Amino acid sequence: MRILGIDPGYAIVGVGVIEYNGQNFKTLEYGAITTPAGTAFPARLQMIYSQMQEILALYKPESMAVEKLYFNTNTTTAIDVAQARGVILLSAQQAGVPVYEYTPLQVKQAVVGYGRAEKHQVIEMTKKLLSLTRTPKPDDVADALAIAICHAHSAPGPAARQLLAAMGR
Amino acid sequence: MRILGIDPGYAIVGVGVIEYNGQNFKTLEYGAITTPAGTAFPARLQMIYSQMQEILALYKPESMAVEKLYFNTNTTTAIDVAQARGVILLSAQQAGVPVYEYTPLQVKQAVVGYGRAEKHQVIEMTKKLLSLTRTPKPDDVADALAIAICHAHSAPGPAARQLLAAMGR
Repeated sequence: MRILGIDPGYAIVGVGVIEYNGQNFKTLEYGAITTPAGTAFPARLQMIYSQMQEILALYKPESMAVEKLYFNTNTTTAIDVAQARGVILLSAQQAGVPVYEYTPLQVKQAVVGYGRAEKHQVIEMTKKLLSLTRTPKPDDVADALAIAICHAHSAPGPAARQLLAAMGR
Repeated sequence: MRILGIDPGYAIVGVGVIEYNGQNFKTLEYGAITTPAGTAFPARLQMIYSQMQEILALYKPESMAVEKLYFNTNTTTAIDVAQARGVILLSAQQAGVPVYEYTPLQVKQAVVGYGRAEKHQVIEMTKKLLSLTRTPKPDDVADALAIAICHAHSAPGPAARQLLAAMGR
C-alpha cells in the first residue's frame, strides 16, 4: 500500500511517500514543497498545485493522508493554510487518489501509541519506524511522514482485509 | 473593463460578470456554482474548479474581485470556504487573471457609499446600478455582483488612467 502523507501549508508543504506491506515500512520519498515569501498568493497556490501534480504522477499513491485543520489562533495564517489545503485536495481528486484526514491526536496515537505524546516523540518514532538515519527537516516533513504512518496503521492490513473479505464486507 | 466578481463558498459560489466603461455598467452574466451536499469534499472542489475554468474561458475577464475572508464563528464552515477559495484563486492564476480582494466594508462603501450599510441596501443598490429587473438570488449572487462593482469603483477609470499616464505613473 503506497501512501502519500501531506502536512498542508502555503510556505512549506511537508511531503512523504511510504510503502507499507502490513508489517514493514519502506520510505520512497520525503521533502517539502516551498513557495517564496513575497510571491503573490495565487502564484504560490499555482506552485503548490503543479508540484503536487508532479508528485502524484511520479509516485502514483493509492491514498493521500492529510492533517485535519483546526483554527483557534492566528486566523490570517490559518485562512491561507486552508486555501493551500484546498488546492492540495483538488490535485488528489484530479489524480483519482482518495483522501483520508486525521487529527493530530490520531496521528500521535497511531505513531507513538499515546495521544498526548510530545512533538519530538512523534518525530523520533517516525524516524525509527521508517528506519531513517537522519531526522527529517523541517518538522513539516516529519509530520507528513507521521500522517502517512497513521494512515497505514488505520487502514485495514492484509490480515484484516482477508477477515473482512471472509465476512463478506 | 470586464470584471468577474466572486463570492466564495463550497456549497454556493456566487458569480457575476460585469463590464464597466468608467461611467456605465453592463451585466454580462450572473448566477451560482452549486455543489451537492453529501458529495465528498475533494469532489466538490473539483466541480468548483472546472466550472471556474469554464467561466474564465468563456468571459475572459480582465480581473477577478473576491471577498476577503475573516474567521470568527463556525470555523468548520470557514475552513471549507477557505479551501474552496484557494481553488478559485488557483483557477484565476492559471487563466492569467489578476485577483483583487476587498473587505465587506470596502464593498459596502463602494456600492452604497456607507460602510455600515445593511445587506438589503447593498442588494438594492447593486440591482439599481446594474439596471437589473429582478433581485439576484441567492444573496451570494448579489454579493458577487456587488464585489465586482466595488472593484470597478476602486480601479482607476479612463479619466483617472489618462491623468495617471500624464503624470508618468
